[in-house]
Amino acid sequence: MKHSAMYSQIREKTYTIIFQTNTKAGRLFDLILLGFVLISVLLVMMETVADFNLKYHSYLITLEWIITVFFTIEYLLRIFSIDKPIRYVFSFYGIIDLLAILPMFASLFFTGYNILTVVRALRLLRLFKILNNPQFTSQSLKLKRALIASRGKIVVFIYFVLISTIIIGSIMYLIEGKESGFTSIPMSIYWTIVTLTTVGYGDISPQTPLGQFIASFVMILGYGIIAVPTGIVTAEINKYNKSRETQHQNPCGNCEADIYPSNAKFCPNCGHPIENN
Amino acid sequence: MKHSAMYSQIREKTYTIIFQTNTKAGRLFDLILLGFVLISVLLVMMETVADFNLKYHSYLITLEWIITVFFTIEYLLRIFSIDKPIRYVFSFYGIIDLLAILPMFASLFFTGYNILTVVRALRLLRLFKILNNPQFTSQSLKLKRALIASRGKIVVFIYFVLISTIIIGSIMYLIEGKESGFTSIPMSIYWTIVTLTTVGYGDISPQTPLGQFIASFVMILGYGIIAVPTGIVTAEINKYNKSRETQHQNPCGNCEADIYPSNAKFCPNCGHPIENN
Amino acid sequence: MKHSAMYSQIREKTYTIIFQTNTKAGRLFDLILLGFVLISVLLVMMETVADFNLKYHSYLITLEWIITVFFTIEYLLRIFSIDKPIRYVFSFYGIIDLLAILPMFASLFFTGYNILTVVRALRLLRLFKILNNPQFTSQSLKLKRALIASRGKIVVFIYFVLISTIIIGSIMYLIEGKESGFTSIPMSIYWTIVTLTTVGYGDISPQTPLGQFIASFVMILGYGIIAVPTGIVTAEINKYNKSRETQHQNPCGNCEADIYPSNAKFCPNCGHPIENN
Amino acid sequence: MKHSAMYSQIREKTYTIIFQTNTKAGRLFDLILLGFVLISVLLVMMETVADFNLKYHSYLITLEWIITVFFTIEYLLRIFSIDKPIRYVFSFYGIIDLLAILPMFASLFFTGYNILTVVRALRLLRLFKILNNPQFTSQSLKLKRALIASRGKIVVFIYFVLISTIIIGSIMYLIEGKESGFTSIPMSIYWTIVTLTTVGYGDISPQTPLGQFIASFVMILGYGIIAVPTGIVTAEINKYNKSRETQHQNPCGNCEADIYPSNAKFCPNCGHPIENN
Repeated sequence: MKHSAMYSQIREKTYTIIFQTNTKAGRLFDLILLGFVLISVLLVMMETVADFNLKYHSYLITLEWIITVFFTIEYLLRIFSIDKPIRYVFSFYGIIDLLAILPMFASLFFTGYNILTVVRALRLLRLFKILNNPQFTSQSLKLKRALIASRGKIVVFIYFVLISTIIIGSIMYLIEGKESGFTSIPMSIYWTIVTLTTVGYGDISPQTPLGQFIASFVMILGYGIIAVPTGIVTAEINKYNKSRETQHQNPCGNCEADIYPSNAKFCPNCGHPIENN
Repeated sequence: MKHSAMYSQIREKTYTIIFQTNTKAGRLFDLILLGFVLISVLLVMMETVADFNLKYHSYLITLEWIITVFFTIEYLLRIFSIDKPIRYVFSFYGIIDLLAILPMFASLFFTGYNILTVVRALRLLRLFKILNNPQFTSQSLKLKRALIASRGKIVVFIYFVLISTIIIGSIMYLIEGKESGFTSIPMSIYWTIVTLTTVGYGDISPQTPLGQFIASFVMILGYGIIAVPTGIVTAEINKYNKSRETQHQNPCGNCEADIYPSNAKFCPNCGHPIENN
Repeated sequence: MKHSAMYSQIREKTYTIIFQTNTKAGRLFDLILLGFVLISVLLVMMETVADFNLKYHSYLITLEWIITVFFTIEYLLRIFSIDKPIRYVFSFYGIIDLLAILPMFASLFFTGYNILTVVRALRLLRLFKILNNPQFTSQSLKLKRALIASRGKIVVFIYFVLISTIIIGSIMYLIEGKESGFTSIPMSIYWTIVTLTTVGYGDISPQTPLGQFIASFVMILGYGIIAVPTGIVTAEINKYNKSRETQHQNPCGNCEADIYPSNAKFCPNCGHPIENN
Repeated sequence: MKHSAMYSQIREKTYTIIFQTNTKAGRLFDLILLGFVLISVLLVMMETVADFNLKYHSYLITLEWIITVFFTIEYLLRIFSIDKPIRYVFSFYGIIDLLAILPMFASLFFTGYNILTVVRALRLLRLFKILNNPQFTSQSLKLKRALIASRGKIVVFIYFVLISTIIIGSIMYLIEGKESGFTSIPMSIYWTIVTLTTVGYGDISPQTPLGQFIASFVMILGYGIIAVPTGIVTAEINKYNKSRETQHQNPCGNCEADIYPSNAKFCPNCGHPIENN
């Protein structure tokens, strides 16, 4: 396929605006897109509020179509300007972008309304793109690293918590019985999770003295073991902070010491000047 | 403008008493003011308790006027004694001080009562001034610094939590429907926040088995991710503590830098040898 | 006053048994006393359970009198055996010990029953004595030290939280009004504390959309700022752990280095043997 | 006792499959067993859901018998293949394995149904075996070590919390009285635990202004002291992480000790000079 120079230039320009964030036009486009996504998510929400929808239904539908058209143009421009359109279409964000426009067109043919409404809400997944913003990337990377490093301990912890909830749930089912709302073991387990995590709805609560005694024990347990995931994550972040500050630098050119403050100009071990990297 | 010496002296004295905290009279004034602010806030509160207000309305009004007059005199003295009165009047505390007296005078002319009552409650913002007290300043500075340093990570965290609540809220709306109180997506999101933060009012709670299953998942998620902000802030405070600790050493004899590792033999700032103490 | 040798010997023996914990008889006495205190606290509790009290009232009273007599003898023996009885009588534990026996004798003369019952519950304050046990002392000292060291930061934090609750409470009172249970500002503040601390009874909960929006904000705030006290205490314990491990030792006899592992036998700086203390 | 070579070989093979996890067949057996345990626990749960049980009772019973037969064969094979069968039978997991099959056989003779159902739920204790998996062992060991190291502090903390709940419970009983649901001191203590751990069911909540004031205090206390166990566990994990980090160095050339400060020049264990890497 052969392209004229002008066509190629427009395509390149479009790519820069839509996909990149380091030009003025690119940033402006991102900001407008962010606004449209937020408005469209808000539209989906408000449509489910009966009173509001009744009053302003026609406005909501109109706005919805404006946004859908905008998103459709944007989607087509993305396919047009990118080098490997197929790869984009089947990527995570490609599918999300498509799901943002399909439900509205589908609503022309189907009346199975409710699910279409919520599929449209998936648009907000596009908001995750913002985390790719360089301003946030380093922060979210640190968090992600700390969470990944503590993955093993957290899996063991959740495994232990889940088995505990099943055991406690079974015991409470035996003690409380159906009168207090503990109608089945799954229901009892649901209660145990509600209590252990200190949520405490109060839709089910123990009525017998023994049940309340065990419930007290579960609460204190739940109150105490929150310390475990917190301790795990904190220690990971701590470790990361420490290692970043003290060692990952170029060693001293004279004595090869590699542990010094990040802002050191001279090696604290031999006094040799340190070259900045 | 020319002032007599005596006028200037009174003005200076007034300034010392009202604005400064390092003289005996200044501290006494601060203490009395604190007492008046506390009493006036208490008055505003008690006025809204129907039974109490009915019984003691005249006492409350009388006390209120006494305090308003005191605050008015104080406000005028502040304007009188300070060098740049305009700057004070439009400063944060200047506006707060004015709002502390205006509503009472306004109540003479207007009967739109309720809002005026609460505007008076803004007086308690004056209590924040206490945090300027040198005793607290260093402590609140440390906290502020730790919070500012972890700002980036916390923004990413809250952003992630908010998007999660919208997604979970939309799913719960689909599953539970209007019978269980999940009347709209905003209502569902409200429920998700109530659950994720482990508050758990119980005014809305899932009724279907699938809804309760997802709710259990949300609770365990909420119970677990509290670890993240805690870990972030703890690590910041830790880091600050650590860097401060390496500071309590004898400063470098050459450049007076006093932050270096405890085992440093040469100043990392200027390369000068460090004498051990 | 002159005492016979035998009298003095009995007195000394009694003192050892009652006040000290390092002899076999002393430990046994402490254990029996602990048992009696626990039983007596249990008695007070069970007496308030209507059904139980109705059935076993006479047993409860009999047991109560046995324990009161035992406590009375113990109290008299304490006064008899200690060197400065007056000081003991007016000490914290002296008063607690007296309050443990007075209500029962008072109940012979007065029928103002309820308060006497609960005064007896103060006996359990005697349980705090166990924390003087050398096994626990070091642990509770560490905790106490960490809490005292973080006192300043915690005061600032609670001060900030209290002012926030008053402000948020006033705003919610304005928004929600009396229909939703926000009947007065103090009631609104109570709701704010219930929500901010993630307790969430659900006896009062916002009904208006705006109220629920602000409530969501309060919940996320409460969920987030729990990180602050946790971070403060953790950092203190951390600091204490670190300083205890590395520095509070006798310095090396040769090079005076005082930072080495607690189990070091040779100075890691100059290789000189370290004398254990 | 003399065994034929083939018998001995089968026995050995069986042992490898059932008890070991480092062969392909052993891992497969473990996976199948895990599946069966999960299904059987699910069966027990679903049997207690009235609607579900009514519809599918015969299927549930059939599946239950299939699993019971499988578990019985497995149990017999374990006894057959292990060297010291008596020791296995009376070990923790031996008893659990027996309890997994007994109730079903017992249900043939007895109709005291409910308890048998739940005894069967004990099967899920077999899931704890997974934690013996080498993948998890190191992680759960670390957690266990941190929890054991902080045991002393946690005991003191819980002791303190329990005494506090009794005192606060007694006071609330006096203030609120029977009208608000605070029917007895144990009930009041139950409420205190529900509040202090920030669970907050709302089945009992204070109605008097004074009661609500004290409740607010309890909530802020509960909100604050969660910092203590969290701080304890975090500091322990931190300490462990730290000590482990100073370990990843080259061991001492003389005594092979590998735990010393990173800047050590001489081994703190034997005084031998350390070569830097």
